[in-house]
Amino acid sequence: MNLLYCLRHAETVHAKKLAVIDGETRYTYAEFGVRSRQGASFLLGTCGLQRGERVAALLLNRAEYLESYFACHVAGLPIVPLNIRWGIEDFVFSLNDSETSAIVVDERFAPLIPALRERCPSIRHFLFAGDGPTPAGASSFAEGLAQAGPLLDIVEPDADDVAGLFYTSGTTGGPKAAMLTHANLYANAVHVMMDAIPRVDVYLHAAPMFHLADVTNLYQTTFRGTTHVFQRAFDPEGFMQCVQGHCANAAVLVPTMVNMLVNHPKFDDYDLTSLQVVLYGASPMPLALLDVAMRKLPNCGFIQGYGMTETSPIITVLTIEDHRTKWPVDKANPLLSAGRPVMGVEVRIVDDFDRDVPLGQPGEILARGANRMKGYWRRDTVNAEVLRGGWMHTGDMGAMDELGFVYVMDRKKDMIKPGGENVFSPEVEAMIMTHPAVLETAVIGVPDEKWGEAIRAVVVVRPGMELSDSELIRYCRERMTHFKCPTSVVFLDALPKGGTGKVLKTALRVK
Amino acid sequence: MNLLYCLRHAETVHAKKLAVIDGETRYTYAEFGVRSRQGASFLLGTCGLQRGERVAALLLNRAEYLESYFACHVAGLPIVPLNIRWGIEDFVFSLNDSETSAIVVDERFAPLIPALRERCPSIRHFLFAGDGPTPAGASSFAEGLAQAGPLLDIVEPDADDVAGLFYTSGTTGGPKAAMLTHANLYANAVHVMMDAIPRVDVYLHAAPMFHLADVTNLYQTTFRGTTHVFQRAFDPEGFMQCVQGHCANAAVLVPTMVNMLVNHPKFDDYDLTSLQVVLYGASPMPLALLDVAMRKLPNCGFIQGYGMTETSPIITVLTIEDHRTKWPVDKANPLLSAGRPVMGVEVRIVDDFDRDVPLGQPGEILARGANRMKGYWRRDTVNAEVLRGGWMHTGDMGAMDELGFVYVMDRKKDMIKPGGENVFSPEVEAMIMTHPAVLETAVIGVPDEKWGEAIRAVVVVRPGMELSDSELIRYCRERMTHFKCPTSVVFLDALPKGGTGKVLKTALRVK
Repeated sequence: MNLLYCLRHAETVHAKKLAVIDGETRYTYAEFGVRSRQGASFLLGTCGLQRGERVAALLLNRAEYLESYFACHVAGLPIVPLNIRWGIEDFVFSLNDSETSAIVVDERFAPLIPALRERCPSIRHFLFAGDGPTPAGASSFAEGLAQAGPLLDIVEPDADDVAGLFYTSGTTGGPKAAMLTHANLYANAVHVMMDAIPRVDVYLHAAPMFHLADVTNLYQTTFRGTTHVFQRAFDPEGFMQCVQGHCANAAVLVPTMVNMLVNHPKFDDYDLTSLQVVLYGASPMPLALLDVAMRKLPNCGFIQGYGMTETSPIITVLTIEDHRTKWPVDKANPLLSAGRPVMGVEVRIVDDFDRDVPLGQPGEILARGANRMKGYWRRDTVNAEVLRGGWMHTGDMGAMDELGFVYVMDRKKDMIKPGGENVFSPEVEAMIMTHPAVLETAVIGVPDEKWGEAIRAVVVVRPGMELSDSELIRYCRERMTHFKCPTSVVFLDALPKGGTGKVLKTALRVK
Repeated sequence: MNLLYCLRHAETVHAKKLAVIDGETRYTYAEFGVRSRQGASFLLGTCGLQRGERVAALLLNRAEYLESYFACHVAGLPIVPLNIRWGIEDFVFSLNDSETSAIVVDERFAPLIPALRERCPSIRHFLFAGDGPTPAGASSFAEGLAQAGPLLDIVEPDADDVAGLFYTSGTTGGPKAAMLTHANLYANAVHVMMDAIPRVDVYLHAAPMFHLADVTNLYQTTFRGTTHVFQRAFDPEGFMQCVQGHCANAAVLVPTMVNMLVNHPKFDDYDLTSLQVVLYGASPMPLALLDVAMRKLPNCGFIQGYGMTETSPIITVLTIEDHRTKWPVDKANPLLSAGRPVMGVEVRIVDDFDRDVPLGQPGEILARGANRMKGYWRRDTVNAEVLRGGWMHTGDMGAMDELGFVYVMDRKKDMIKPGGENVFSPEVEAMIMTHPAVLETAVIGVPDEKWGEAIRAVVVVRPGMELSDSELIRYCRERMTHFKCPTSVVFLDALPKGGTGKVLKTALRVK
């Protein structure tokens, strides 16, 4: 199977349904199919690209982003969706690393064209797919598409052909691109359609379309003939306007966005009753926030997805039904878990020698299924390591309970082992955060002659407040098992963070 | 992917749910997993079968049938489910054709053991999985399973390994077995879970478990952790007792069974409100019957599936939503169609040269997808023909409308071409059946010097009534386009029929 199946199915079964509404633009799935083949014809014919060459996309959310995905798929050109939050150095690195031949930009990113032209010699075509006039040195994507006849001699992609290169954030060494094949992305779309994400009429692209969280929905909604609507970039009031204006039924939000939404002063001014599904991920939703969100959006089902770019991305899901279940209070609350393996993906929890650990015991989370990436682009050594035995080694530590719920505990490399004990840094961080003087913290392991490794808390103190290392250590030892408590504290003005806001613990360790 | 994924997913996510209720027998999915590995151990270890050897099943519906499927899958032994309506000659043919090494029978079929032992030399093991004492010359499946430790060194099947040989009815030449692989059956289960068949708690095996219509549900329900309950063989009152007794939510019925059910004198004596899904197939439901059924089972959704053994089996589905839609009356009624392509299967309608015909025009229905059989067992010449270009040539004539609904018209070889026109025999048969003196009819083509082919009606007259050929021909010509009318009539006492009740037109043509 490949991603053209999604498109052809929609053309056959949903020919007359609206595929896209974006401002004045609206067209059916029959027309979407034609536009995708025109886009492919433009890229291969007019631009002269050869199958297999890379086409980057650097766009806010819009119809042309969706068209770029499918035009590339039809043409057999791997797409390279770039993180819109990156800076110029990251763009240059990834465009050169992927040896990209063409890039599609909108008005937000068009000003970067001169710099990219100078620093990325492999780029032969700058395609403009934004609002306003086409900038100098770029060709109009819309005009190119309109002038190209639909591609007639379509080469059916192999399931194993790379459909996209998706760069992962730099928290584990330098950025690298996961090669996701047609089969990978197709499989993930299929997995989430089986009892995980219900079918809806209108899907709002609110999360950025370069990110796998949105890409998941891009394919499953196309397959199902759902209408795509777009918010250029998330802000809470704009989101409410989009939902109300389009009667949108589903969107992806991270917990921070949910927080901004349900606590927005104008929340009650908007009619959000069309919202049936909110998908969230990246982190479990704090229970208090989830409770508020479920009360304020009583028609809406919440779904948590856990996964990573390398698994296209979904590994586990906490379903709408799971969210609505009243769980026993004498056990771990599944609402604090990442859910259970999605249908089609197998999960194991293993020790350092890839041996299964007993249920309930922590270990590294492994996943396999047709959604597992082909590998990182040009990183054969890393691939042999992370894909050994056919399983994706997520680098996440977690445990599975007897009902199949997976509790994610820590990044494996962030786990600390003082004297052979396992300490998960988020647990210690959560304790330290309860201290009123702490604004932010990150807990890391440092070499220790006696214990092998010792726990260090890196702390940012709230403005105007004071805190000493001995006071914080004592605070922890009064409240937590002693081996989990920090033995040293470092105070900083701010924590180093990566492009997506994650704390870069690697940078802390070398300080 | 392979079918062990379904089992392992259920073991992980639904460990504590009941997998099976059959009389006094009931066990969870965790136990089902163990029993499947014990069954595999029994077959490979105790019986000494080698991976790849065939194991036939000749059973009414029961828990042991489900266990036989999964024990074979775990062991790497293709299962050969036999049609319970066949006679001894068909059993002997298929067992010898498949060179089966072991056969599982119940008390209904145990009396055949001596004959099969004599006539099927490849069978080394007769396994008894029925009620009552184990007959002489057979081993107890239950005891063998109980004594075997779970298989430990499971060889993971390749997706392309044959999971089962499914014999197709003999209406197209002699019977032959479709080789369905792990990937084929897994794909079909996945396809129907995407927006076609909803998840339910309790599934009733009422249709025979050798048949793909039930096999579809056997895998998707296992994957989803649905509880399996069993009716040994369909009768309408027994069905109502099972539904009421188990609060069953879903079952497969053919239109005849639905008719027997909703017109049963005791229909109102039973509580069938648990029934959420009735799947039907083999033929479209007559609209009047569908109307009665939907009124009498107002909580229940109806789903029609069209397909064939060779496509594992689903090609198109008429969904619950399609059944509930009020369709415009100025066009063909989609309720008379076979529905639209299921997600994951592509359908084409082509002429004799495999070229696409325009929408609305009749042609042969082709299908492809991961559900398409590997081929017929040891029929390389036929395989090259029916699978040419990678598409399954269904041999069915049909047309697709602009909404993607597929109308099945006739078997291609039953279509008649008088003077170059296309006549679909079911249309003529339906007209003839309106004559009050006609009990049964089959319309075939016979060689004709002038027109190439002429239309002949083979008719069984109702007892006590009279009908002449000229009267019937005149009756037709008053009501139907002349080129569609029979030019000759043959009267028979009964129509020759195959094992599943289909009229054998091949036998009529040689008369």
